[in-house]
Amino acid sequence: MPDLLSEAFEQVQEDVDSAFDAFLPVPQDTRARLVEAMRYAVIGGGKRVRPLLVCATAKLFGVDRDAAIAAGCAVEAIHCYSLIHDDLPCMDDDDLRHGKPTLHKVYDEATAVLAGDCLHALAFDILSMQGTSSDPFVRSELIATLARASGHDGMAGGQMMDIVSDEQEYDLGQVTRLQQLKTGALLAASVEMGAILGRVPPEGRTHLRAYARDIGLAFQIADDLLDVEGDEQKAGKALRKDEGQGKQTFVTLMGRDKARAQAEMLVGQAGEHLSSYGEDARVLVELARFVVERDR
Amino acid sequence: MPDLLSEAFEQVQEDVDSAFDAFLPVPQDTRARLVEAMRYAVIGGGKRVRPLLVCATAKLFGVDRDAAIAAGCAVEAIHCYSLIHDDLPCMDDDDLRHGKPTLHKVYDEATAVLAGDCLHALAFDILSMQGTSSDPFVRSELIATLARASGHDGMAGGQMMDIVSDEQEYDLGQVTRLQQLKTGALLAASVEMGAILGRVPPEGRTHLRAYARDIGLAFQIADDLLDVEGDEQKAGKALRKDEGQGKQTFVTLMGRDKARAQAEMLVGQAGEHLSSYGEDARVLVELARFVVERDR
Repeated sequence: MPDLLSEAFEQVQEDVDSAFDAFLPVPQDTRARLVEAMRYAVIGGGKRVRPLLVCATAKLFGVDRDAAIAAGCAVEAIHCYSLIHDDLPCMDDDDLRHGKPTLHKVYDEATAVLAGDCLHALAFDILSMQGTSSDPFVRSELIATLARASGHDGMAGGQMMDIVSDEQEYDLGQVTRLQQLKTGALLAASVEMGAILGRVPPEGRTHLRAYARDIGLAFQIADDLLDVEGDEQKAGKALRKDEGQGKQTFVTLMGRDKARAQAEMLVGQAGEHLSSYGEDARVLVELARFVVERDR
Repeated sequence: MPDLLSEAFEQVQEDVDSAFDAFLPVPQDTRARLVEAMRYAVIGGGKRVRPLLVCATAKLFGVDRDAAIAAGCAVEAIHCYSLIHDDLPCMDDDDLRHGKPTLHKVYDEATAVLAGDCLHALAFDILSMQGTSSDPFVRSELIATLARASGHDGMAGGQMMDIVSDEQEYDLGQVTRLQQLKTGALLAASVEMGAILGRVPPEGRTHLRAYARDIGLAFQIADDLLDVEGDEQKAGKALRKDEGQGKQTFVTLMGRDKARAQAEMLVGQAGEHLSSYGEDARVLVELARFVVERDR
């Protein structure tokens, strides 16, 4: 990973961890177990791709770092809640996440459902705080963006399409649509929220949206390749799951070589969309490359 | 039920149903199952106590009806998502809700988790819409109120305390605190949101907050009495659960007679808090009485 990107990742990881630590003091009553579970899920572990997208985009427009970290935490809280719920026995039934036992394994299923629900609420709690933006219009737009991207017209809708795909054969168009919702919507929301914090009007977000769309798709193609080719130890989660479930993915539909070529093409294209930002966009451009080259 | 209150209920039930119908068109792809499950949970069935609280409070201050219904739908979406998740096998494992099979019985557990999550997102989606308020400050305040009331410092935190109460004996103070969070927080948020829509500044909400606190507690005492004395057919859900679980409730801790007297006292007191609003507050005053006299 280039130095600039790895430094940006480290800084975001540190800032997000300490922000979550401040957002989640453990109460002195029997809710302690719940808040400890929430902390287990959001502090340490994740790559923080989404918060980095928020921060790197926001930085293009000179946004205050603390505001960008707060918005990044909100997106990450949504991402983490979705992982907790996806890992439940009634969903993907996973035992390992970020190299650690999944939340319902460490606590129990009821706590996992509730901790996920509370992180979901925390995301909107954070976005409605003055610290995220002193301008209520900005706060409201951030909330609208995140709510839309995570609900039935976004991430959770994509997850439903994914569940149904066990019973139904999807073609490439359907898999693309599924992934645009399941993974792409939240990545796109991260970039969008950076632009909203930067007070970029919708008509000025065209290039950023094109960038986000490309890395969203590249991210998922890379995930599908990782499922086939990756190292479970490095990935920190179970792999080879798609094949076992007979699931249609970019890899099964296009083959490995074409899938890899497509991801490469998208990364190049993503970078070009940001050419007008010049050197300022270097972290975002390098992030696009990281997205397809990561091993976890 | 007095005519005025039953008319108010009917009108809110009708308006909330048609608003949810408009918010949730069924998509023409494999997310259809998810949105149908969401519709199953939020259209028809519930009493709509929370939306009525929003609307009746908002009406005190001349708020536009559509705005109040939208905010009421947001609270109801949170309430319904919490019921779906609470009914899951890993939580309360209930088969019946509002006289209908619970969502995971009709669909499956994975769909129930996701449909709950999507209703959660829908709540904030609705509150961030222009239709709820054209003033972003109002929208942001509504969102802050609902997010706080539903997360680990509110409803879900109370639910966690409730789960832990299976293993730990609570005293009356702890049961009161548990219920203030689990049930009271969302009822209080409903009244608060009506006041926010009415642009009542925080210092002008004292009487309304006192009213909400009293009916929240009365509501839960009535629920505990209903669990012991109620008719399952009318209630539309399983009863006699507290005793089986050896759970501390207002009834086990105070006895039926004292619990009923306490609920009666709270209802009277709740009404008095609204005396300055005179006849305008009649629906809210009658609603307080309904809360303890309901059979479901």
